[in-house]
Amino acid sequence: MKAAPRRFDVDLSLAYTLPGTTDFVFQIHALNGIDQVVESESLRITPGARQHIYEDPQVGNRFLRLQADAGPLKIRYRARVRVERPSRNKRAQEHAVAELPDNVLHHLMPTRYCESDLLGPATLELFGNHAPGTARVEALCDWLQRNVDYRTGSSDTTTTACDVFLRRAGVCRDFAHLGVTFCRALNIPARLAVGYSVFPAPPPDFHAMFEAYLGGRWELFDPTSMAEPQDMARIAVGRDAKDVAFSTIFGPVTAGPILPRIVAVA
Amino acid sequence: MKAAPRRFDVDLSLAYTLPGTTDFVFQIHALNGIDQVVESESLRITPGARQHIYEDPQVGNRFLRLQADAGPLKIRYRARVRVERPSRNKRAQEHAVAELPDNVLHHLMPTRYCESDLLGPATLELFGNHAPGTARVEALCDWLQRNVDYRTGSSDTTTTACDVFLRRAGVCRDFAHLGVTFCRALNIPARLAVGYSVFPAPPPDFHAMFEAYLGGRWELFDPTSMAEPQDMARIAVGRDAKDVAFSTIFGPVTAGPILPRIVAVA
Amino acid sequence: MKAAPRRFDVDLSLAYTLPGTTDFVFQIHALNGIDQVVESESLRITPGARQHIYEDPQVGNRFLRLQADAGPLKIRYRARVRVERPSRNKRAQEHAVAELPDNVLHHLMPTRYCESDLLGPATLELFGNHAPGTARVEALCDWLQRNVDYRTGSSDTTTTACDVFLRRAGVCRDFAHLGVTFCRALNIPARLAVGYSVFPAPPPDFHAMFEAYLGGRWELFDPTSMAEPQDMARIAVGRDAKDVAFSTIFGPVTAGPILPRIVAVA
Amino acid sequence: MKAAPRRFDVDLSLAYTLPGTTDFVFQIHALNGIDQVVESESLRITPGARQHIYEDPQVGNRFLRLQADAGPLKIRYRARVRVERPSRNKRAQEHAVAELPDNVLHHLMPTRYCESDLLGPATLELFGNHAPGTARVEALCDWLQRNVDYRTGSSDTTTTACDVFLRRAGVCRDFAHLGVTFCRALNIPARLAVGYSVFPAPPPDFHAMFEAYLGGRWELFDPTSMAEPQDMARIAVGRDAKDVAFSTIFGPVTAGPILPRIVAVA
Repeated sequence: MKAAPRRFDVDLSLAYTLPGTTDFVFQIHALNGIDQVVESESLRITPGARQHIYEDPQVGNRFLRLQADAGPLKIRYRARVRVERPSRNKRAQEHAVAELPDNVLHHLMPTRYCESDLLGPATLELFGNHAPGTARVEALCDWLQRNVDYRTGSSDTTTTACDVFLRRAGVCRDFAHLGVTFCRALNIPARLAVGYSVFPAPPPDFHAMFEAYLGGRWELFDPTSMAEPQDMARIAVGRDAKDVAFSTIFGPVTAGPILPRIVAVA
Repeated sequence: MKAAPRRFDVDLSLAYTLPGTTDFVFQIHALNGIDQVVESESLRITPGARQHIYEDPQVGNRFLRLQADAGPLKIRYRARVRVERPSRNKRAQEHAVAELPDNVLHHLMPTRYCESDLLGPATLELFGNHAPGTARVEALCDWLQRNVDYRTGSSDTTTTACDVFLRRAGVCRDFAHLGVTFCRALNIPARLAVGYSVFPAPPPDFHAMFEAYLGGRWELFDPTSMAEPQDMARIAVGRDAKDVAFSTIFGPVTAGPILPRIVAVA
Repeated sequence: MKAAPRRFDVDLSLAYTLPGTTDFVFQIHALNGIDQVVESESLRITPGARQHIYEDPQVGNRFLRLQADAGPLKIRYRARVRVERPSRNKRAQEHAVAELPDNVLHHLMPTRYCESDLLGPATLELFGNHAPGTARVEALCDWLQRNVDYRTGSSDTTTTACDVFLRRAGVCRDFAHLGVTFCRALNIPARLAVGYSVFPAPPPDFHAMFEAYLGGRWELFDPTSMAEPQDMARIAVGRDAKDVAFSTIFGPVTAGPILPRIVAVA
Repeated sequence: MKAAPRRFDVDLSLAYTLPGTTDFVFQIHALNGIDQVVESESLRITPGARQHIYEDPQVGNRFLRLQADAGPLKIRYRARVRVERPSRNKRAQEHAVAELPDNVLHHLMPTRYCESDLLGPATLELFGNHAPGTARVEALCDWLQRNVDYRTGSSDTTTTACDVFLRRAGVCRDFAHLGVTFCRALNIPARLAVGYSVFPAPPPDFHAMFEAYLGGRWELFDPTSMAEPQDMARIAVGRDAKDVAFSTIFGPVTAGPILPRIVAVA
């Protein structure tokens, strides 16, 4: 069963001033796959720059690689995305390790922001006795919502799941990192998912959720509870925020404000 | 009311081989104070070495400062200590910050091994709703006993309370550091206490507990539950293990085995 | 030989709004001692509050302990301080551990912000071969100035010396913490010193330096090189920033801007 | 130009006792590729177990996935491997970011053990002014050899590049992690390489080196300087040790000694 499809209009404008030739890697293109379809999209880069798009063969993330000369640089990405995500399978089972597909296995490993090895004992104490399956992942999302404060400015680009577990504050990606970490520590493969999201407050923006591998597919969870899975048009999935960075900039630039306009249509 | 007094015979032998002139600071002398009395003691250092004993004017810890020349060095400390500790006041109150004595106040501050600032939010989530007083400190000791594994070799000299909270394993000083940290995060002054202890297993050895300031005095707690407060003849109290190190050695030496004989007498 | 004496007029205004009864510990009173003298001072607290001042018997730091009721709270501290600091002894020796005074010894130990144990090997690699004495401490100050960027907002209250060593950015207290840490790793006792400072830029403000124990006394160093030792009227010295916090507030309050006026006079 | 080819006979025996059904993932098969060829190999698992081998399509690592029942488990892997590695290109260039192949790009990102983001400023201070190319990577290997002590037992499975940078001690994988981290912080793609190695001391064993992407190919470096690139038959390459773990065991088992016999032949 699928949730009612949703359509989003995304309109993202980026502006930089470059002191010299600068390399960028962006992940701003919406994912085009089975549970969301890019119906139309356009990308405009002003002035022209050396660029190409690399699509990861495994997960479909698109990397816009771009080298631009000194001066102003403007990028505008527009897309209409139809999200038609299956309703969450409330009774999905966790997989025994032996049953995990080969290309899913590595999502059990700790990463830069998700130290599931260090957090293993604490995770088992909190969730080790829960019945396995979707309900256990929902229980850890509940825990995150009750015990971690959503607080803008409470974390930075060095904040890891361990930090969030101690400090009990963070923004969406911190919630998602700790969710990923809990799952991996329970031997549930998990990964970060980022995208464009519409939800009441804060305003439409980039958002981060996480996906857990349950019942043979990746289920999307929002441990901030600010959005439903169908409220986000995913851009990328990856091991953690380092794999799915919206922008990686090689050199000093001045950046203008970055606030995507995202409108739910029809 | 006092618990039945206990008497310990302590017999500690240390042996080192020094490649050159070496400085040492030892804390091996039993504390001589209101709740424990050193009835007799002797210290023998072979061969003779430059030494003096500094007694901290506030808490009475005795520092044996010693400089010895190249070659073998043997130290033997023997003491008979009578421990006559008041029974724990089960109904002691926590103090409002304003009521804390001036010289107790700094025991609210985080230290090298006790990052009560970082662990503040997690502590409040765990124990913030408990009724204040002795029972709250006992509750956090119970939590430590249930959730942290006593495991020799699971920690080292860099292990802090945050590490223990994440890894859920440690030895006595790790339990005590996390106990201290929880207390400070709850605005209960707390400090580490180390000493000679008799208890069934592991064999009589150095031990670490912690003290919390409740009801106008320092109450001793053993979060490993291996010993009772009256089972330990304290050597030193301090902010954390860095203040009460059994030995600090300035230079490379070869050390023999260090295992105190501690016998409960009469 | 003394540097030319300097006189400062300090005028510090603090304003808070308290939602309920709140405890505070301030360290805002200038130190009154051999190398700086408080010629006059006044403290005004509006409205009246329960308060007393505790002076640390060892170092003279004054702690203003204050409990105030809900509502606005204003504190104004004014002082004229004469700073008459001996010129730095450029040829001072480091002390052998055996020669260190008893009450200085503990300043070799690592603390919450100064993990001299962890940074020991790196410190020895950088400064282990320098000739001991004042020149070595000046060399490590030079290193700090060349390798660490002074950058407002680059650190927060959890930033330790290890963080600063890795990230190479910080503010005055971060420079001082790393300086303290280097010294301790070299077996030079060191402590943090904070005070009111006049120097060109940033504007007169609280400042942090560090002191190293050399040639039988505490020598003051500013590794940011923004000020000279005689440019700061010290408020407090301590193991690290946790010992000398300008304010510790037990409860949620709203704080107004905190910018001391400090004027060099005559 | 190629270095003289070498041939290794590898004979690895593993023995476990399993309390219940247990899942394993091993990476013990030698890589079969352009610069090393598996001439013959055999794998014997006693008793039989559910197993299959997954070969990563990008880099060729082979994952032996195995589920075995309670009782003893023995694994024996034997292989003859010919290593015919090109001599290092001493004049290879670093690539501009824009020129990096799409599937190499992600090797610039920090990972669990290689926090190249945190170590960026310190890396630039150390190596930022070196001329780019092979010589710069050799310079950082020299630094590692001079400044880090090879010391068995000095690190554990939680030790990261930052830890090694501070503590200046580690084993081969720690050297390699810090080498990878320095490279990434310099925008040189880098990855961990593990394998079977013959070198004088310690005895033939698993070994870890790292690879840097220079002049259009992956060059192998051993920052411990214990082995030459042609002395190692690689098993796997990956982001860091979490990607190339020799064994990952899901459940409690008792393991026998693990010491591969590796003999250089002909």
